[in-house]
Amino acid sequence: MKEVEKLWEEVRELSLGNNSRIQRLDAAPTAVEFLREFVSQNKPCIINKANLHWPALSLWTQLSYLSKTMSSSLVSLHLTPNGRADSLVKHPSLDQLCFASAHVQQLPFDQALQLVLSNSNSTDSKVVAYLQQQNDCFRSEYSVLGSDCDQHIPWATEALECYPEAVNLWIGNHLSETSFHKDHYENLYAVVSGQKHFLLLPPTDVHRMYIRHYPAAHYSYSQDMLECTLELETPAIHVPWCSVNPYPSPETRETEMAKFPLFFNGPKPFECTVNAGEILYLPSMWFHHVRQSPDENGVTVAVNYWYDMQFDIKYAYFNFLQSIHYKSPHDPTLSEIECEDSGSDASVHNLRDEVRADTLTLNAKQDNEDKWV
Amino acid sequence: MKEVEKLWEEVRELSLGNNSRIQRLDAAPTAVEFLREFVSQNKPCIINKANLHWPALSLWTQLSYLSKTMSSSLVSLHLTPNGRADSLVKHPSLDQLCFASAHVQQLPFDQALQLVLSNSNSTDSKVVAYLQQQNDCFRSEYSVLGSDCDQHIPWATEALECYPEAVNLWIGNHLSETSFHKDHYENLYAVVSGQKHFLLLPPTDVHRMYIRHYPAAHYSYSQDMLECTLELETPAIHVPWCSVNPYPSPETRETEMAKFPLFFNGPKPFECTVNAGEILYLPSMWFHHVRQSPDENGVTVAVNYWYDMQFDIKYAYFNFLQSIHYKSPHDPTLSEIECEDSGSDASVHNLRDEVRADTLTLNAKQDNEDKWV
Repeated sequence: MKEVEKLWEEVRELSLGNNSRIQRLDAAPTAVEFLREFVSQNKPCIINKANLHWPALSLWTQLSYLSKTMSSSLVSLHLTPNGRADSLVKHPSLDQLCFASAHVQQLPFDQALQLVLSNSNSTDSKVVAYLQQQNDCFRSEYSVLGSDCDQHIPWATEALECYPEAVNLWIGNHLSETSFHKDHYENLYAVVSGQKHFLLLPPTDVHRMYIRHYPAAHYSYSQDMLECTLELETPAIHVPWCSVNPYPSPETRETEMAKFPLFFNGPKPFECTVNAGEILYLPSMWFHHVRQSPDENGVTVAVNYWYDMQFDIKYAYFNFLQSIHYKSPHDPTLSEIECEDSGSDASVHNLRDEVRADTLTLNAKQDNEDKWV
Repeated sequence: MKEVEKLWEEVRELSLGNNSRIQRLDAAPTAVEFLREFVSQNKPCIINKANLHWPALSLWTQLSYLSKTMSSSLVSLHLTPNGRADSLVKHPSLDQLCFASAHVQQLPFDQALQLVLSNSNSTDSKVVAYLQQQNDCFRSEYSVLGSDCDQHIPWATEALECYPEAVNLWIGNHLSETSFHKDHYENLYAVVSGQKHFLLLPPTDVHRMYIRHYPAAHYSYSQDMLECTLELETPAIHVPWCSVNPYPSPETRETEMAKFPLFFNGPKPFECTVNAGEILYLPSMWFHHVRQSPDENGVTVAVNYWYDMQFDIKYAYFNFLQSIHYKSPHDPTLSEIECEDSGSDASVHNLRDEVRADTLTLNAKQDNEDKWV
């Protein structure tokens, strides 16, 4: 067995448990327990229901309460044609994948919420709306709701000896989905209403994500939201992003599995559902993919707390691992992977450059039949 | 710059500070601080003087107190011809390096202490004695001294949620020296009298230690201690051990530097002196080399507490790093390094086997002129 694959296994065997299940705690941990068992070990956990006693848990299930309290406050609404912001889509004219961000619009809360709800009643939407902004929006745009939740997670604040760097509110519907990525934060993710479904991979699985540089683009909606275009950023910028979609459509499934064998043939991701009233500790640098199931009103509501991470020996080890090029013998050749050769711009990275810089390539074992999809 | 050397640097820059100094604390940390700042980050620290208020600090400087209290208790005494137990020495008949353990003898405490002291007055000893046994000896052989020290370090016990797995007492003189090695424990090392001088290297520097398998041997003294022989273990066993002696004699210095360029040309080890009344937190997996300066009585006395470590993602990353073969272009060829080709015994590892199994070799940069010796 090759070194990198042994690392994937060892992390699962030694630290995380080999059953692909996230540990569930019946009570909130003390600061010491949280540090020793989870942060130090870079290991996720879920704190079960009944540990949160926020007014939000009952108040926010009445949308009339939210509308009344927020009244005409302006909020940031993310619009996409399919619920997938920050994801890879084929650019219509370039015929290659690009990294597409949502169209962000400031709207009065009530009007924005109606757009989120409109998808619940229609199967033929041209626009999927998601109330979110990852810039500490809960303490700015939504500050009037502040007293409905804790402003921070007390045991995490004590453990990490700092208040959250950002607290974000998320109100979306069943169509919104977040593609695989990682954050440089310790993340405490509290679900208030509905459910969030996570796929999690430890940082040691970095090669299985096929992180490549993609040209950045954003959706742009006309005033009446009837027409959406995908516009490349100018000047061009390239964004490193995970190439893997863990839930390919039946039509693309075979192609996707052939393109990303390390992901589809490797160990199963950790799957978990976080219910209303539960908190997921999502450790820094873990790759995560998120989908959601709405409550009876048709929305999923969550608040997440981003705490600064420590850039310690674990981070240095991660960078070292990532700097090692590793591929499966089943990996397609370069010409088979969609990527841009942007050539002239020295600041722009692309896949070919990465592979040219490769001084060290490991080969995955040939005989892995343990597909999980 | 190559990947492995970048890792050495990044650990120093991000986590440890680039000045090769171990952080000193003026007060004992709380359990939360100890976990967050040190254990989680696998980062050493020294807790300054005045934080220990043990009776031992004054009582044990009177050797008469120790002799009287211990009276004729039997203790383990380690005997070597040069103060270097668990170190590499050339075997006289094999003409190759072997891993030499001390001769261990049970003696009444007073008699054993006299042997430790005898070196202080003589420059021409045939035997160097060291009172130590790393099997929890403080709580067994020395249990009558138990009330003179803490039985555990309270903030470490709270942080790690366990009592020490072993507490060891060390009484030695200026000749005793411990060669580079690592332990799978979180180590709290308290100096009671005299000084301990540590050289420390983070686990990420593993390739700089040139860990190789050496045939195990032990010293054997005749009854009158006038004659010492070095006997190979039978059946033969091979022990993986660090090849580097950081303080080569003037005569061997050039050869040693040529043999171990990654060590001698790489970043300087962390150096620190731990004084009486101070505690060093020596994180699990850190390589350490120890020398000592005696007090006015001619001895150095220390107590160390070994707490179980967590075998978490840091440990898995370490194993991955170690599995990657990495050598300097200045490294001598195999035939120039002393090692045994023991051939027939399948259970025996040796350097050639290791290198044959090498599927992955990184080359160090050619231009490193930053020698620190």
